[in-house]
Amino acid sequence: MANLLVAQSGGPTAAINATLVGILQGVQINGGVEKVYGARHGIEGVIKGEFVDFQKFLGDFQGMNALMHTPSSALGTSRFQMPDLGEDESVYEAVIAKFLEYDIRYFIYIGGNDSMDTVSKLSAYCKEKKIKIGIIGAPKTIDNDLCLTDHCPGFGSAAKYIATTISELAYDICSYDIPSVTIVEIMGRDAGWLTATAALARLNGGIGADLIYLCESVFDMDKFIGDIKDKMAQKPSILIAVSEGIKDKEGKYISEKIGTGEVDDFGHVQIVAGAARVLTELVKREIGCKVRAVEPNLMQRAAAHIASKTDIQESVFLGQKAYSVSLQGATGQMVAIQRIQDAPYKVSFIAVPVSAVANHVKQVPLDWISGSGNNVNPKMLTYLKPLIQGQVNVSYEDGIPKYQKIY
Amino acid sequence: MANLLVAQSGGPTAAINATLVGILQGVQINGGVEKVYGARHGIEGVIKGEFVDFQKFLGDFQGMNALMHTPSSALGTSRFQMPDLGEDESVYEAVIAKFLEYDIRYFIYIGGNDSMDTVSKLSAYCKEKKIKIGIIGAPKTIDNDLCLTDHCPGFGSAAKYIATTISELAYDICSYDIPSVTIVEIMGRDAGWLTATAALARLNGGIGADLIYLCESVFDMDKFIGDIKDKMAQKPSILIAVSEGIKDKEGKYISEKIGTGEVDDFGHVQIVAGAARVLTELVKREIGCKVRAVEPNLMQRAAAHIASKTDIQESVFLGQKAYSVSLQGATGQMVAIQRIQDAPYKVSFIAVPVSAVANHVKQVPLDWISGSGNNVNPKMLTYLKPLIQGQVNVSYEDGIPKYQKIY
Repeated sequence: MANLLVAQSGGPTAAINATLVGILQGVQINGGVEKVYGARHGIEGVIKGEFVDFQKFLGDFQGMNALMHTPSSALGTSRFQMPDLGEDESVYEAVIAKFLEYDIRYFIYIGGNDSMDTVSKLSAYCKEKKIKIGIIGAPKTIDNDLCLTDHCPGFGSAAKYIATTISELAYDICSYDIPSVTIVEIMGRDAGWLTATAALARLNGGIGADLIYLCESVFDMDKFIGDIKDKMAQKPSILIAVSEGIKDKEGKYISEKIGTGEVDDFGHVQIVAGAARVLTELVKREIGCKVRAVEPNLMQRAAAHIASKTDIQESVFLGQKAYSVSLQGATGQMVAIQRIQDAPYKVSFIAVPVSAVANHVKQVPLDWISGSGNNVNPKMLTYLKPLIQGQVNVSYEDGIPKYQKIY
Repeated sequence: MANLLVAQSGGPTAAINATLVGILQGVQINGGVEKVYGARHGIEGVIKGEFVDFQKFLGDFQGMNALMHTPSSALGTSRFQMPDLGEDESVYEAVIAKFLEYDIRYFIYIGGNDSMDTVSKLSAYCKEKKIKIGIIGAPKTIDNDLCLTDHCPGFGSAAKYIATTISELAYDICSYDIPSVTIVEIMGRDAGWLTATAALARLNGGIGADLIYLCESVFDMDKFIGDIKDKMAQKPSILIAVSEGIKDKEGKYISEKIGTGEVDDFGHVQIVAGAARVLTELVKREIGCKVRAVEPNLMQRAAAHIASKTDIQESVFLGQKAYSVSLQGATGQMVAIQRIQDAPYKVSFIAVPVSAVANHVKQVPLDWISGSGNNVNPKMLTYLKPLIQGQVNVSYEDGIPKYQKIY
């Protein structure tokens, strides 16, 4: 019998460990390999031979349940990008050498776009060299921008965090009887999916974001100020969600409309700021009311305590699916989620050619953005709503979530 | 029979509505008043006569339970400060006129330091004028800086949010195998209690903040850089918590060590930044690694979904206590929590003279800060630990917490 290797790559999410757990569950249920290894810090750990043996962890139900709900990448992650074969074959040789040294027959790589590129390149290399190693990708990204999958693991949990946070912020800011503008900057440089989830706060009759600007629409400063003035004619406190990647009509990031970040002397620093901070300065100048930038920053990808149960369950099942297609001899595939219907929500788990996923970005369709460009329409809400359903049973010890380390 | 008036003031917390619910429960259980009113936006709403009648809400158990877990001030809040009597008696007369118009015999004001000042001044005025209205304060502040109470409602929930967030951030940043510094700026200009809760993340064997700087200690830039270098000799990713109010040895806020915030033209804005952003520029210059400022901002006071059950229960009981001492004829008092023992944690609810609370700030004792000034010691952990115990049963609808509006 041969062995299985798993690794994680790209930005952390609340669900990337759930997919790892799904893979381990797949091994427990189906057998088919002698040993399961995890490489630390993605492909870099593969090359260095930094392997974790999962033997003692298999069968540990409590540990697996805790790991399922633990944020970030338990194996460690990496930003490494696989060079093109023509550029540097030695990286490919180094990876394959480790695969052979550890008798790896199956490699599952959990990650985002760069990781799918690695899966695509490595699997093509193995095919060409007639090396019998199945290489499978399992998606994850809070950006939700991978093609050929209805949505990405990790996105639903980030969405639930954003929807909850926007709801709580709305309750906070509306408690004052004074004009104020609060601008929340949400992750997403090239796709506005996560920013769109700010609209979910309104779903249950609650209060939420008044204005939502995705990076798919051209951002116009004058229209922005006009939109705020219109809203302020109705109520004093305005809550706004913007994608970090909003751009003007020349394609320049709003976040770049600011000083250089250079430090001339410590008394006069120019801070490199994001889109929300740039816009607060604009609102201060043009409207003059109290204005505040809020950046959920790393919390939006790490807040496992408020993860979506739907997201975590799907992420586990995708891990199982990834192992299942590996056993069937597949390679160069990414496992994916296909939506069958919105309500009641039904999905199936499929495998798609990873080469058609790598290096493509799935943006928000423009007809899911409202005509005025400052909100999303019901198509978006129908799409998003199932993804944040259900709460996870995180274990607490001493009042704090009990998360799991594996090394 | 006479009537009861309740109002809320100061910065929102996750527990201020729990105290409101406690007061309403007190009325339901004990009777003693004909009507219960709430004034919108604190004393400002009293003066304007913007009253909410709680009649239809009393007895609504589901509504009361939802309100108990709803963040921010359901009645609205205010920053209004009561002028000194010698300065402007007309404000006092306006308040008393409304009290008499609505036949208010009891007034309970839920708030922080400024609100206790209002309670102190108004109750003294009524005594002097022989007006028989009982005026009682109920504390709340995430800053935890009120005297004569072991701790303040709202603090435990903010502490649980910070402890959980620091834990999740620690998992996030340690997943990369590259040197990085992450600086989390926590609310508190004059007291570092909430910043100290960053240490709680380590309680359950988890990982947490490596360095903690409270505003009670002098902040030394050179020592700060030295502390980071020492920690980085042991591991690559460093997580740091700082109070927003850290100051240098001249007493100047670190957050002021930056440009003026003036806008000369839109291409060259100088952003007004907090302590964490100023320090990221310093770390970039002195160490040169990846560095990031994280600001939990309004989330730390609004994240009701991760409130402390202990905090919410105590806040409810303090509301009941406030009504109880009102019925007994007290005035010029603040209800407070007295700790009987740490483990098992026991408290009693008492009333203290509000004049001894108003305009004083309870800072962290210097001997609760470690000798090196970059952490807290076991005395602090013993104090903090009971305050974050237990999770609340927030109701969810459509995947989002279901919060309660009352008008």
